[in-house]
Amino acid sequence: MSAGPGPAAVRVGVDVGGTKVLAGVVDDEGRVLRTARRSTPGRLATPEATEDALVEAVLDAADGAPLLAVGVAAAGFVDAAGERVAFAPHLPWRGEPVRDRLAERWRAPVTLDNDANAAAWAEYTLGAARGADTAVVVTLGTGIGGGLVVGGRLHRGRGGMAGEFGHGQLVPDGRPCECGRRGCWEQYCSGNALLREARAGVGTSAGPLAARCDGDPAALTGVMVTEAAAEGDEVALHAFEVVGGWLGVGVANLVATLDPDVVVVGGGLVAAGELLLAPGRAALRRALVAAAHREVPDLTPAAFGPEAGVVGAALLTRG
Amino acid sequence: MSAGPGPAAVRVGVDVGGTKVLAGVVDDEGRVLRTARRSTPGRLATPEATEDALVEAVLDAADGAPLLAVGVAAAGFVDAAGERVAFAPHLPWRGEPVRDRLAERWRAPVTLDNDANAAAWAEYTLGAARGADTAVVVTLGTGIGGGLVVGGRLHRGRGGMAGEFGHGQLVPDGRPCECGRRGCWEQYCSGNALLREARAGVGTSAGPLAARCDGDPAALTGVMVTEAAAEGDEVALHAFEVVGGWLGVGVANLVATLDPDVVVVGGGLVAAGELLLAPGRAALRRALVAAAHREVPDLTPAAFGPEAGVVGAALLTRG
Repeated sequence: MSAGPGPAAVRVGVDVGGTKVLAGVVDDEGRVLRTARRSTPGRLATPEATEDALVEAVLDAADGAPLLAVGVAAAGFVDAAGERVAFAPHLPWRGEPVRDRLAERWRAPVTLDNDANAAAWAEYTLGAARGADTAVVVTLGTGIGGGLVVGGRLHRGRGGMAGEFGHGQLVPDGRPCECGRRGCWEQYCSGNALLREARAGVGTSAGPLAARCDGDPAALTGVMVTEAAAEGDEVALHAFEVVGGWLGVGVANLVATLDPDVVVVGGGLVAAGELLLAPGRAALRRALVAAAHREVPDLTPAAFGPEAGVVGAALLTRG
Repeated sequence: MSAGPGPAAVRVGVDVGGTKVLAGVVDDEGRVLRTARRSTPGRLATPEATEDALVEAVLDAADGAPLLAVGVAAAGFVDAAGERVAFAPHLPWRGEPVRDRLAERWRAPVTLDNDANAAAWAEYTLGAARGADTAVVVTLGTGIGGGLVVGGRLHRGRGGMAGEFGHGQLVPDGRPCECGRRGCWEQYCSGNALLREARAGVGTSAGPLAARCDGDPAALTGVMVTEAAAEGDEVALHAFEVVGGWLGVGVANLVATLDPDVVVVGGGLVAAGELLLAPGRAALRRALVAAAHREVPDLTPAAFGPEAGVVGAALLTRG
C-alpha cells in the first residue's frame, strides 16, 4: 500500500470568548466545515492555560489537516499591530505577545483581532454589509460589540480600540456599567438590558412570560422573553420596545457621525427579529438628525450567527 | 508702454455661513493673502441672490486675477457627489446644482463641500491634525460643526452627511434643539450653551461678569464670558466647567467609536483656551472607556481660526 497525499491544508478561525473557545475550519465561501470547542479557563487562569485551550480547539477542528493559517478573534482590546491582547475583562492576557506565541505552537501564520472586528469583517466580506463603503456592525450579546468598516477597510483606530461605542455614554448618571462608568449604551441595549426590563415587569404579570419562569424573575432567560413576546406577552413585548428604542437612539448617533451605507445588527438578540428591529427602526427615524432630508439606513440583520467571529477571523488571515 | 503679463491665477476659498460670506485667496501653504466679504442674503432670499453674493465676494478677493479654482464651503448638507446643497437651515438652497451654476459664472472649476468638512481638511492638510490617519475635528461656534478624516481621506459618508455628531443625543428628553429633537450635544457644548450657563448664573453674582453686562443677562456675549473667566469670575468659570465637561463627554463617545490619532477643537469658543480645554480633558478622561488601558488623545486647539473654512475650501480644489 503506497502512502497517498495527506489532507489539504485548512484555514481555521477561533473565537475566544469569556466562557468558551470555538474553533472552525472555514472555506473561501465562509462556510464552517468542522468545529471544535473548549471551555475558556477564565480570567484567573494563566495565559498559558488559555493558550492551551486555543491550541487544542484549533488542532481538533483541523482534524489532522495541516494549518494554512489561523485567525484568532479575542473578546478584548487587541493592539493596533495585531500582536497582543492589551486587556480583556474576561481573559487573563495583559499584553502578552499572543500572536507570535500561538504561531510558534501551530507552526502557521496567525492573525489576531478583536472578536467584534472579526464579525464585522465577515459581514463586510461575505454577509449583510457586502459592497458597502462604510458599514457599522453592532453585535448584541451580553453587552454590545462593535465593528466599523470605512472605505472598504476594517477601521481599528490608533490603538486598535475603535468600535467600542457600546461604552458611549447615552444617559448622564445612568445605570452603572461593568466598565466602571455610568450610562453606557450597552446597559440599555443588550441581552442583559432585555432581561432587566423583563424581570422588572414579570412579577406583576400573569401572561406567558410569567408562566415560563413560574413567576420567578431570576429564572428568566433571553429565549423565554423572545418566545413569550412572539406569543403576545405584554411584558415581553414592552421589554423589546424599550431595548429596541435604545437600539435606535444609539444607532442614530453612529449614523449622525458616520453616515454609513449599512447598519448591521447581529448577536444573539437579533434572533428575535422584528420584535427588536421594528421598534429599533422607528426610534432611529425619530432620533436621527435630518431624517426627512436623507435616506435613513435600514437595520439589517447579520448574515452570520454565533459563528461570525470564527468566520471573520479565518477570512482575516487572507490579508 | 507695452502690456505686461496679467496677474497670476489664484485659488480662492469661500465660506458661506448663515450671516456672512467670506472669500479669500489662499496660497499653497494655506496662507490667506486677500479677503472679501458680503452679508448672506438669508434663508428667505432667493438662491440667485445668495449666489450673487458669493460671486461678488470671490471676484473681489481675486481682485482681477484669473481664477485657477474656487472652493465653496457651505453651512449645510452637501450631497455626496459635491454638486448640490441638499438642505441648509440658514440658506435658501434646497437641492439646486450650486456647483455647476457657480462654475459657469466664475468660468473656473468649483468644488463644493460642507463648511465643517472644509475646516477639517485644512487642519488635516496643514494644521493641527497633520500626519494623522484618523482625525476628529469639532468646531464649536453657535452650534457644533464636525469633520472626520479616516485613512487620510475626508469621510463624507453615503449621502455627504457624516460628521453631524453635534446632533447626537447625549441627554434623553434633554434641551430642545433647533433640529427638532431633544438633548443634542450642541445644546450642551457650544457658544449658545456657554451663554445659557452664564446667563443663568449672572443674576445672582456681583463679579466681573455682572459688571460687564450691567447685570443684564440678555446683554451677555461670549467674549464677556471669556474675559470674565480669565479674571476669575465664578459664574463665568463655572460656565466653562460645565461646557468643557460636556465637550469631554461628547468627545469620549467619538473616541470610543473611532479611536482617532487626534481630536482637534476649533471654532470661536476655543479662543478661551485652557478655560475650556482643561475641564474638557478631565471629563474626557473620566468618560472614556478603558482610559487607564490606552493613550487618551489630547484635545488639540485648531491651527486655523475663523478662516479655516476658507482655507480648507481652497485646499479641497487641489483634489
